[in-house]
Amino acid sequence: MDHLADASNQNSQPQTQISHLALDIGGSLIKLVYFCRYSDSCRDDYDDDELRSQNDSLCSKRGNSRPVLEGRLHFAKFETSKINDCLEFLRSMKLRIGGFHESTAPLSDKIFIKATGGGAYKFADLFKEKLGVSLDKEDEMECLVTGSNFLLKAVHQEAFTYLDSQKEFVQIDPNDLYPYLLVNIGSGVSMIKVDGDGKFERVSGTSLGGGTFWGLGRLLTKCKNFDELLELSHQGNNRVVDMLVGDIYGGTDYAKFGLSSTTIASSFGKAISDNKELDDYQPEDVSRSLLRMISNNIGQISYLNALRFGLKRIFFAGFFIRGHAYTMDTISVAVNFWSKGEAKAMFLRHEGFLGALGAFMSYEKQCLDGLIVHKMQQKFPISVSSAGDKIYCSQNSNSDENASIECTVYGT
Amino acid sequence: MDHLADASNQNSQPQTQISHLALDIGGSLIKLVYFCRYSDSCRDDYDDDELRSQNDSLCSKRGNSRPVLEGRLHFAKFETSKINDCLEFLRSMKLRIGGFHESTAPLSDKIFIKATGGGAYKFADLFKEKLGVSLDKEDEMECLVTGSNFLLKAVHQEAFTYLDSQKEFVQIDPNDLYPYLLVNIGSGVSMIKVDGDGKFERVSGTSLGGGTFWGLGRLLTKCKNFDELLELSHQGNNRVVDMLVGDIYGGTDYAKFGLSSTTIASSFGKAISDNKELDDYQPEDVSRSLLRMISNNIGQISYLNALRFGLKRIFFAGFFIRGHAYTMDTISVAVNFWSKGEAKAMFLRHEGFLGALGAFMSYEKQCLDGLIVHKMQQKFPISVSSAGDKIYCSQNSNSDENASIECTVYGT
Repeated sequence: MDHLADASNQNSQPQTQISHLALDIGGSLIKLVYFCRYSDSCRDDYDDDELRSQNDSLCSKRGNSRPVLEGRLHFAKFETSKINDCLEFLRSMKLRIGGFHESTAPLSDKIFIKATGGGAYKFADLFKEKLGVSLDKEDEMECLVTGSNFLLKAVHQEAFTYLDSQKEFVQIDPNDLYPYLLVNIGSGVSMIKVDGDGKFERVSGTSLGGGTFWGLGRLLTKCKNFDELLELSHQGNNRVVDMLVGDIYGGTDYAKFGLSSTTIASSFGKAISDNKELDDYQPEDVSRSLLRMISNNIGQISYLNALRFGLKRIFFAGFFIRGHAYTMDTISVAVNFWSKGEAKAMFLRHEGFLGALGAFMSYEKQCLDGLIVHKMQQKFPISVSSAGDKIYCSQNSNSDENASIECTVYGT
Repeated sequence: MDHLADASNQNSQPQTQISHLALDIGGSLIKLVYFCRYSDSCRDDYDDDELRSQNDSLCSKRGNSRPVLEGRLHFAKFETSKINDCLEFLRSMKLRIGGFHESTAPLSDKIFIKATGGGAYKFADLFKEKLGVSLDKEDEMECLVTGSNFLLKAVHQEAFTYLDSQKEFVQIDPNDLYPYLLVNIGSGVSMIKVDGDGKFERVSGTSLGGGTFWGLGRLLTKCKNFDELLELSHQGNNRVVDMLVGDIYGGTDYAKFGLSSTTIASSFGKAISDNKELDDYQPEDVSRSLLRMISNNIGQISYLNALRFGLKRIFFAGFFIRGHAYTMDTISVAVNFWSKGEAKAMFLRHEGFLGALGAFMSYEKQCLDGLIVHKMQQKFPISVSSAGDKIYCSQNSNSDENASIECTVYGT
């Protein structure tokens, strides 16, 4: 199943009226967060003016009487290389964005959507040309932090640990959240020390991220998509490809320094001496070795950065993870190994949408003459089943990162 | 030129009498350090008993009258997978090791040689069977540290910085050497905090080392040896394969967080979207990207560990480096980037032989009834040209890591 292109496959669904959309356009993926009011969700008979005037009227109710919109926050994604599918999807969804329009701007500039990630710069002209909307650019790191803070504070059962295939939700006290390290694993990896709302510093990162797993994996295995490569890794055995401590020590540990015989001494190190070509290796084994190399490396660098700033909590997010058991297990084991059990890796259910959520939240900061999103409340816990029918995302049972959020949006 | 198998090609040379040999048998390479006395070097007419009695007589001169041996310390290496070539080389060199023999041991156990690395365990039986010698195992980390301390204290112009293709020797004050971080890049990578002679701790490491470069490189490029792969990287352009910040941001920097448009956002990230197969990429570009990924990662993790312990000096060694300009440049840039210019990477000319040297030095600790190596003095600076003729190593002009050391060995 093509996990990456799922949203584009849904064009045959009944058309839905999107109100309020935000984008996070990364190197590999475009992530969308959009809000559909319940009253809108079955209607596609608005025209732009109708929606705008409705929003205008909402906006006019500022002050004590706060307008309330009930609806659902949806999540979707596209491959960045297939941006035309995304544009087509938005067009087919009868994109009528929030209705923000600056009275001083010329008519053509009236409609804009919040966007973050490098692609907000790279594709600004394309959005203007194809959809007639301007991208209002928000800082990528800021959006990640805003999205993460929102999820950790507002969404029930958002964070969890994963070790030995056991998922355990972590109750986060919103008053005792900071500081923490946010590790966002997209094509590359950003590590951000978060000290509060809008208080953060990008302290580190690594170029060995999801793009490396998928890029190298594609070259080595000829897999056609990321999820296929992940799926392969389930069945693989990295010992066929990796050089273990036991391979060097003749089967024994190097116990003096805590290195067991099964510790990986050198990723892909076995390939140096085998008289094998690439085709002689099973793609499963290559995929597993690659996944372990990248996950372990990210876990290690993250822990070293957490240690550096005395951060006890490390949250891992980004679309590399995809709720994938072995990925999370490896990251958890790495953090546990390098911290000697003192630190724990945590994961987020909406891992892939931090940036897009943050961009969505950024409407709040900017009161033009449109609606201001003030707060989103989750009314009840998300479950995969309840989300499955409503969202334009993968039905991958290992992952509920795309679950939509039942929420209420207040205008201020 | 096959850099790894060079020693084995020298069997046609006049036979040389090796006295005192130590081995470091790693996952990829066997490193040899051996001492040839000047008086021995042109003689191959000893038999075992002769050599032993000579050493016994030296040993008997303990006390004030210290016997002096003048000679040359040689360095050689073999691929571990071609261990039979190494055994053959040693046999052809009329191996008569040190002459250590324990009076209590049975005759067959009399001859032993110091060895370190995992292969000292793995191949112990093979050495016994093929050469009739026992391997006396020394701890790998301890040997690395002993070798490094020796080189940094005793050898003139051993350490140097390398940045923007400029090599600059660093004068090390032996009284102000500690603490430092030693990063040994073999198949895998060990990071050792060194606080003094014999005082050290293995604080970290990574499985992304020389074995990963060569293993992945072999699978991706079909190169037949490590040096060919390194050589290829000279001509490559990693931008063809890596996803840069500018690729995501449409050519611009992400200046707010110090990420220029040419910063690598995702190693191999460009391969995710190109409609290219592996064969469509130039091996040069793949090699360069791979080298940069691994070197940069090692530089980063090393710096984070140096920071953790407040270590200002980081010495990089191990056979991954091979005096290769681009490797050293990348590591230097990584340390400089992550430390914001506060830390500097340093390299060692005998980078590949720390463990073997350490094992060699360990004869000193063990007074049986044989010769005790007390001290090695370098009589004059090593130069590539003076070393070139004497050693059984590569003539690779980029690398003088195999330079032999003119030295004096004192019995105590």
